[in-house]
Amino acid sequence: MKGRKVFILRLNHRPQRDKRVTTHLFLAARALGATGAFYSGEEDEKVQRSVEKVNKSWGGDFKISHIADWKGKMKEWKRKGGEIVHLTMYGLPLRQVIDRIRSLQRDILIVVGGAKVPREVYELADWNVSVTSQPHSEISALALFLHELFEGKELSTSFEDAKVIIIPQAKGKKVLKLNP
Amino acid sequence: MKGRKVFILRLNHRPQRDKRVTTHLFLAARALGATGAFYSGEEDEKVQRSVEKVNKSWGGDFKISHIADWKGKMKEWKRKGGEIVHLTMYGLPLRQVIDRIRSLQRDILIVVGGAKVPREVYELADWNVSVTSQPHSEISALALFLHELFEGKELSTSFEDAKVIIIPQAKGKKVLKLNP
Repeated sequence: MKGRKVFILRLNHRPQRDKRVTTHLFLAARALGATGAFYSGEEDEKVQRSVEKVNKSWGGDFKISHIADWKGKMKEWKRKGGEIVHLTMYGLPLRQVIDRIRSLQRDILIVVGGAKVPREVYELADWNVSVTSQPHSEISALALFLHELFEGKELSTSFEDAKVIIIPQAKGKKVLKLNP
Repeated sequence: MKGRKVFILRLNHRPQRDKRVTTHLFLAARALGATGAFYSGEEDEKVQRSVEKVNKSWGGDFKISHIADWKGKMKEWKRKGGEIVHLTMYGLPLRQVIDRIRSLQRDILIVVGGAKVPREVYELADWNVSVTSQPHSEISALALFLHELFEGKELSTSFEDAKVIIIPQAKGKKVLKLNP
């Protein structure tokens, strides 16, 4: 996970409707080894603050930026030599393409749709990838994509400058507070 | 996935706040090979209708039931010889326990918390399992648990009586309508 940068691009965020789903999406991205996220649509300080609060307690520096021009971001990403993966139930099955995507060793931008995804996203993406061809959730799709990309190593990511860490328990909770 | 029944128990659903997250959770459960779901908290016809609509188009018979007494459900599940897995960031790491859970060959109830999870859930569960010890989403945690439980086979689950199926494409969308 170190070395290769993986960013999420969440399209067309609508604060009223998507607040919690987008927050969950970004927290999943952070916990599972992604570097940061961009989002288009309406700017939403609440979502950004939720994730910053998690960074502050749990460590790392997962960054979120609002962008006005998603198309520009995708084109820039390609120009700089990165790969673009678009997660869509219409794409090629995850297991059919993941080894090739992983072996490219390039930075990856993972595009995650909002309500209606413009056709250009399918065209600009290097890979349209389906995590099952069934409707479910961008959060579960992203989690499984990252898990397969990082081959399970993401499950033991550690985060720098954490103020709290959990000591896993068979029953109950054990939280260690660092740098109080 | 056939043979072993896997149900989700979503605790303390609050329609206003959780509507979309719970819907995503159930759709992920359905798409990734679970049999059905229970939920406690407030009854929510909208969530149930969303999932039924997906069943109707995309097939299968993933069932959702509202239950008043989550504790009773957990006790009943154990009495009938099933295992209970509680997904919590405080539990034992997924990869440390998943082989043992899988090898038991029992029906599994996966408990997924709401806002505050009562201590009894930790006590009643046979397994408190963490999908990373970081805060993220019950949707990503469930997806990764099912993926590890079913060893990737869930990615190619097929659903009976589907009216629409997707033909995976490198670019664009191809949907086949059956039984019109």
